[in-house]
Amino acid sequence: MNWGLEVSMTEKEISLNRGLQGVYLDRTQTTFIDGKNGVLEYSGYNIHDLAENSNFEETSYLLMYGKLPNKKQLEVFDKSLKNARKLPEKIYDVIEIVKDSHPMDVLRTAISTLSSFDEDREDFSEEAIIRKGIKLTSQVPMIVMAHYRMRKGLDPIEPSKTLAHASNFLYMLEGEEPTKDTARLMDIDFVVHADHGCNASAFTTRVVTGTNADFYGAITAGIAALSGPSHGGAAEGVMELARDVGKADNAANHVKKLLSNRERVMGFGHRVYKSADPRAKHLKEGVKKLSKEKGQTEWYDILLAVQEAMRPYARRGIHANVDFFAGAVYYLIGIPKDLFVPIFAVGRIPGWTIQILEQMRHNILIRPLLHYTGSREKLYVSIDKRD
Amino acid sequence: MNWGLEVSMTEKEISLNRGLQGVYLDRTQTTFIDGKNGVLEYSGYNIHDLAENSNFEETSYLLMYGKLPNKKQLEVFDKSLKNARKLPEKIYDVIEIVKDSHPMDVLRTAISTLSSFDEDREDFSEEAIIRKGIKLTSQVPMIVMAHYRMRKGLDPIEPSKTLAHASNFLYMLEGEEPTKDTARLMDIDFVVHADHGCNASAFTTRVVTGTNADFYGAITAGIAALSGPSHGGAAEGVMELARDVGKADNAANHVKKLLSNRERVMGFGHRVYKSADPRAKHLKEGVKKLSKEKGQTEWYDILLAVQEAMRPYARRGIHANVDFFAGAVYYLIGIPKDLFVPIFAVGRIPGWTIQILEQMRHNILIRPLLHYTGSREKLYVSIDKRD
Repeated sequence: MNWGLEVSMTEKEISLNRGLQGVYLDRTQTTFIDGKNGVLEYSGYNIHDLAENSNFEETSYLLMYGKLPNKKQLEVFDKSLKNARKLPEKIYDVIEIVKDSHPMDVLRTAISTLSSFDEDREDFSEEAIIRKGIKLTSQVPMIVMAHYRMRKGLDPIEPSKTLAHASNFLYMLEGEEPTKDTARLMDIDFVVHADHGCNASAFTTRVVTGTNADFYGAITAGIAALSGPSHGGAAEGVMELARDVGKADNAANHVKKLLSNRERVMGFGHRVYKSADPRAKHLKEGVKKLSKEKGQTEWYDILLAVQEAMRPYARRGIHANVDFFAGAVYYLIGIPKDLFVPIFAVGRIPGWTIQILEQMRHNILIRPLLHYTGSREKLYVSIDKRD
Repeated sequence: MNWGLEVSMTEKEISLNRGLQGVYLDRTQTTFIDGKNGVLEYSGYNIHDLAENSNFEETSYLLMYGKLPNKKQLEVFDKSLKNARKLPEKIYDVIEIVKDSHPMDVLRTAISTLSSFDEDREDFSEEAIIRKGIKLTSQVPMIVMAHYRMRKGLDPIEPSKTLAHASNFLYMLEGEEPTKDTARLMDIDFVVHADHGCNASAFTTRVVTGTNADFYGAITAGIAALSGPSHGGAAEGVMELARDVGKADNAANHVKKLLSNRERVMGFGHRVYKSADPRAKHLKEGVKKLSKEKGQTEWYDILLAVQEAMRPYARRGIHANVDFFAGAVYYLIGIPKDLFVPIFAVGRIPGWTIQILEQMRHNILIRPLLHYTGSREKLYVSIDKRD
């Protein structure tokens, strides 16, 4: 027997793809992204049209069914969403147990727990997956807000029976209905976050679904992926950046310092978009408006100055991404920082649902390879003879 | 604006890889698999040597540290494992809440909950990950067995302070120490399950870790992936197959019928192994021995007859895999069917731990692409104008 032998295939023969960059996993009928030209479409509809004319309910229908609903269809869909605004009592017990954790960890545990209350557990039909997706779209905001209240020692706010999805979400924060403008901004935020191709969390839901695991398992895993700061975490970082900058006049110097220290400027650059992130613009307009409304224009001014300071890097494909303005939106609405990523999750449930469904429609186990580069065929010696 | 336009890139220009087959994700220093020749090595040590001479504790050390321990090192490691045999009280409350669910769902929820009790939450150092891996290696058996007891209305059995990992696992079933042979077989089972390259669950832990999510998030997601019947579920199916066959003489006809109906023969074939699965042999020998010990030789005879009936397909690379005999091992030990996949998870924690660590050592976001094949640039019409 040989030992210490190097693997016979040389590195050159094996081509690694550590980030799976440029690998096409599958076809999709849901989201089109042209990163070079900054185009995003859901089922063929441009994100700008949707952000300006649609709302989260309609966009969720579009994603899940692949077409815009007529009036009757939207009514039925909206009713299903509103009817799903309830949580099993025991979920509150679980939230209570884990309430000191990060809201993303609480959300992950609560969604995993929800599977135990799923009456359709064994039903893997398209209809059942859509039903679960609709239910979870309404339940995730409730979990996030119940936790927000409970960790402060307050009772959760009962969801509204009538408010739209975005308004109801904000309503559950303190029991106050948001202004029309704020609700609309939250709604746009959910619309632009509703799906985004095969990002790490959506990809995770697909890998898990690939083993024929159930819907809740896939979503729980998606939440785990989204909880990582490299995926969902930039919005939090942007407001810290804005605070560090302090005032607009400091922006240029601060950015220069960060870059010369090879530190990241949060909210800039995107794995897919090499031109402007088409989602950013809608939130930028919102921040401008909301800053004025709240009498806190300094935040908008700072972000604008940072964006200006980063302009030279736009040529290299580094632009403000959706997170750059999202953080300011949430901050100005009065949402605590550690809820920024959960908000991302609230918006993303319809996207994950349709991607799970697309995966299920012609399912396959997703399993790449690892290239072993260690020593081979070592001799097993008994423990007495080891150093 | 155009609408209904087909995507300009034709299918032929895009090459899809739906299962990521043949894609090398990364280098590894942990597990070497040669599927063509049926070779499996952990850190250079052949699985046959390990199954015959090592045990789960030593193999776990080997995986986590990349080398075999000396006596002192193994003592320290073993002590850490034994010291970690405790669960926060609240975990039992959560298990109680979800106890009517499948054990894999319970395990997923319990591990997700455990993150709330992790004192090292913010520590992403190598040492901290190993610490978490050791802790979870001891806690997962406790969760599985506590749930097994609690759903029957019984108190969990306190883990032994002295028994080895495999013995303690079986001890927690009914509070009885297993025979030496049974304990050894369980131990071998854990050894051969401890890692297996970039299978769907390990891959899931890597994708989640790729976003810089934490250890518990990655493992929770791995459990979700493993819960899918296409990944961890075959062992359950094999005992159902054996029961359907009924007696050895029926095996040939039964297999013929299954294959002519294009149904799967559970426990045969493997995505990577195109020759004999090197892990299967060790469990096969165990089933033979245990069948005799328990006076239930019919199961071994049936499995052998099924294997014989499948012999013609060996030429096409379809062999009995590790699950084929694992199910019979568990059945003969007296473990209920729905614990078969959790047992897989019990053994796999060390493998996931080292893969998470390997991913963290030079982390990258893992994000493939989807190829959009739907209509492009559709015109958004107001809801009143839709059919």
